[in-house]
Amino acid sequence: MTKTSSGNFFEDFRLGQTIRHATPRTVTHGDVALYCGLFGARYAVQSSSAFARTIGYPEAPIDDLLVFHIVFGKTVPDVSLNAIANLGYAGMQFLAPVFAGDTLTATSEVIGLKENSNHKTGIVYVRTRGFKQDGTAVLEYARWVMVRKRDERAPAPGDHVPRLPTVVEPKLLGAACPPIDVKAYDLALSGSPYRYDDYQAGEKIDHVDGITVEEAEHQIATRLYQNTARIHFDQFSAAQGRFGKRLIYGGHAISLARAISFNGLANAFHISAINGGRHVAPLFAGGTVFAWSEILAKAEVPGRDDVGALRLRTIATKDRPCADFPFKIAEDYEPSVILDLDYWALIPR
Amino acid sequence: MTKTSSGNFFEDFRLGQTIRHATPRTVTHGDVALYCGLFGARYAVQSSSAFARTIGYPEAPIDDLLVFHIVFGKTVPDVSLNAIANLGYAGMQFLAPVFAGDTLTATSEVIGLKENSNHKTGIVYVRTRGFKQDGTAVLEYARWVMVRKRDERAPAPGDHVPRLPTVVEPKLLGAACPPIDVKAYDLALSGSPYRYDDYQAGEKIDHVDGITVEEAEHQIATRLYQNTARIHFDQFSAAQGRFGKRLIYGGHAISLARAISFNGLANAFHISAINGGRHVAPLFAGGTVFAWSEILAKAEVPGRDDVGALRLRTIATKDRPCADFPFKIAEDYEPSVILDLDYWALIPR
Amino acid sequence: MTKTSSGNFFEDFRLGQTIRHATPRTVTHGDVALYCGLFGARYAVQSSSAFARTIGYPEAPIDDLLVFHIVFGKTVPDVSLNAIANLGYAGMQFLAPVFAGDTLTATSEVIGLKENSNHKTGIVYVRTRGFKQDGTAVLEYARWVMVRKRDERAPAPGDHVPRLPTVVEPKLLGAACPPIDVKAYDLALSGSPYRYDDYQAGEKIDHVDGITVEEAEHQIATRLYQNTARIHFDQFSAAQGRFGKRLIYGGHAISLARAISFNGLANAFHISAINGGRHVAPLFAGGTVFAWSEILAKAEVPGRDDVGALRLRTIATKDRPCADFPFKIAEDYEPSVILDLDYWALIPR
Repeated sequence: MTKTSSGNFFEDFRLGQTIRHATPRTVTHGDVALYCGLFGARYAVQSSSAFARTIGYPEAPIDDLLVFHIVFGKTVPDVSLNAIANLGYAGMQFLAPVFAGDTLTATSEVIGLKENSNHKTGIVYVRTRGFKQDGTAVLEYARWVMVRKRDERAPAPGDHVPRLPTVVEPKLLGAACPPIDVKAYDLALSGSPYRYDDYQAGEKIDHVDGITVEEAEHQIATRLYQNTARIHFDQFSAAQGRFGKRLIYGGHAISLARAISFNGLANAFHISAINGGRHVAPLFAGGTVFAWSEILAKAEVPGRDDVGALRLRTIATKDRPCADFPFKIAEDYEPSVILDLDYWALIPR
Repeated sequence: MTKTSSGNFFEDFRLGQTIRHATPRTVTHGDVALYCGLFGARYAVQSSSAFARTIGYPEAPIDDLLVFHIVFGKTVPDVSLNAIANLGYAGMQFLAPVFAGDTLTATSEVIGLKENSNHKTGIVYVRTRGFKQDGTAVLEYARWVMVRKRDERAPAPGDHVPRLPTVVEPKLLGAACPPIDVKAYDLALSGSPYRYDDYQAGEKIDHVDGITVEEAEHQIATRLYQNTARIHFDQFSAAQGRFGKRLIYGGHAISLARAISFNGLANAFHISAINGGRHVAPLFAGGTVFAWSEILAKAEVPGRDDVGALRLRTIATKDRPCADFPFKIAEDYEPSVILDLDYWALIPR
Repeated sequence: MTKTSSGNFFEDFRLGQTIRHATPRTVTHGDVALYCGLFGARYAVQSSSAFARTIGYPEAPIDDLLVFHIVFGKTVPDVSLNAIANLGYAGMQFLAPVFAGDTLTATSEVIGLKENSNHKTGIVYVRTRGFKQDGTAVLEYARWVMVRKRDERAPAPGDHVPRLPTVVEPKLLGAACPPIDVKAYDLALSGSPYRYDDYQAGEKIDHVDGITVEEAEHQIATRLYQNTARIHFDQFSAAQGRFGKRLIYGGHAISLARAISFNGLANAFHISAINGGRHVAPLFAGGTVFAWSEILAKAEVPGRDDVGALRLRTIATKDRPCADFPFKIAEDYEPSVILDLDYWALIPR
């Protein structure tokens, strides 16, 4: 009879159900500044409205990952408040640039449900979409999470595993990037001479720098996205839990890896799609994050001669520099690996 | 002979004296973002300019408590730099909405003075008012603090205890809330189906979530308000003091409790008055704050059929979840209670 | 063959070389808010657009030191990524006010090179200039740093020690301050009755307050400036280094000292030049910073009857209050001193 929401349990979901998530959020230059203070990204397009205008944007766009984190945060109270594990992402496409002053909302459609054999949990697959105030879609992705059941005896609410893409097709990669004037793109200001043609599939890049995460930092970041997952904020309860401490939001590692990967990928200014992402191991405050990337593939974007796409695997580790590109030992991830992210980034040709 | 201010001591105040406080402050979207990062509030009206416009605001208003903290901060150098204890608030009314770009200033009138029998301290009662750049009053409240005397032998500067209201009258509650279009108020976006008629006097709500506070967080928050009380920032001196550590600004607990109470009170979007507040016990970094609320009363706001008022008691605790509504044991507060706040919030009818 | 930049080593520099630094940066109200949250400065001109307009600014200017930190940050990847020590500043002049929305870029000219006798390091002297999007110079300063050689056997790239000014001339001090209407400058709002004529050369002021620094705070600040010096962020590597812990960016102590020195210098609203600065000892998280100032000299600014200049030495200490003005013991700095800053600040006449 309480008015408090305790989130949805596995048996509360229905296949085909669409959830309109709460908490519309106007993104401002304030968010941009705080995001910069938390991650220190240096991509010129997002850092400078003057630079962005020169190449064809109306002004500096909001960092792609900040848009993702805000949209993701809205889904937490409805989708993953009772999640045990965030299992994966697929088919994440950025569909339109977002600018300061835009208001973001989100919806999720339930596209798959699969009860686990223990009858205690099930896997929920959702397709989440983020929108601007005028209805423009800005982001779309599939995500699957393992969610607790409230009642083990409740019948499974469905039994369907959706087919999800393993890679976003190149023709979809230009949606959130206006045509850019490559001649006006200043490589001294952007911080690197390397463009599309300078990268080769198979090339590996150690991003060198490490960043130590403090409790205050990940808490501030995660609240900025209005993400309400308790495990990130509540040390009293965490002390009695599995880790004994607060778990850092997985997206924090993604943003750190992206900021760190500037050193070596400075002109890969726009994440246009995320093919898949896996939070391989938990990250806690006090850990230092390092990263390296491999160019998995290159692709021309149909209809675009201004930018090309690099398919990147960025691996983040904790407390382990990446000069020797730690990844897997046989089938298992090297113990220091915390993130395996497969995505497309656009870069001037 | 120094130019450094050491603040006013008890004998420096005069009954009827009006103090114009220093440090005018332009509030911006930057403050809004940082406040969000520090507390994670999710009330749709303050979070989204699109939502706010839909119901009748010109844009998203600044969070009521952020306005309070900034106005309060201005009073510290003049009123409470030599305070031993912040004893209470009364009759706090929000008088006009504040928007990004507005500049806040504050004045305080000394409305009461009462020396303590030890001749070492006295109680100073002030009525503080916050204003916008155009002179519009945005906030008014009475506050009383126990202030040290510089010289025990100094005569008491006055002897008057003002009569203060225990509750703000309902007719005063609509001042800072424009008429809202209730039909346009979207309950899916706001995050709760419950409106004025759904709440009953006597109802208790456990807000469930807990938030652990870090030193960096409360320091950043309190500096954001330009509050200069030394005990919040100076570990070197605090190590030698009563607690051995920095004391968190009492207002930090108020903002945490307000953010946490979204879960159960999502549509109570505007704090229109604070009847009284008591910081029952100190809060230190590392503590986890939980909260619960009781609906003390309901009131129609004269002339308004769009919103009604809930009189709420919100109790915040440290390191103690609130499922069983901890409050008092006989006459004394339960040891985990840190805040007892009695206020009016507006909610759509 | 990697695309990762490892910065310049001593032998990579050339006398007369000009480096255009990467990462243009649009400064916004978001940066202003976060800077306020990190340091809590209270100078009315920067805090309030209403106050700033009243005296003749078009709006509140960006804090001088925030401009400096951002410009400085851009130089790190090119100038000091392989630095062992930041040796000094000279001739720093603020040349134009910066406002929210302006985009900053920076260049550095190599004006001196001097190899050390061990052939392992050398001193690089640069003149750095910061610019707005329209080419207006906003800041200029000389800086010298000790930089490692990549290869001890590499020949010295030059051998020239530039002559640098020990003090910026008064005629240069008004460049970044528009004519101000002194009659409209409200001393109650600014927080102090003291103007130019009230200060005397030789006067010493204890600024009283202390601020403890947390790891999260200096990391957020330093990332806000996009400063990439590893020693500030990477505890994993720092644990194996000279200090065993992260070193706080020297500029953090400057901003803390400036904020603390409001108490006693509230009307010295604009740093117009820095004659020299020395980071006497390292600062680490957990330390509490205190400060005091001496009025070294006073100067009229040619052509200006609205403002005068105070030449200030501000000394910052760690874990040591400054009531007795700690400075030097014989030739050596008192062990608690961390910063010795010699600068000019403008103050209404």
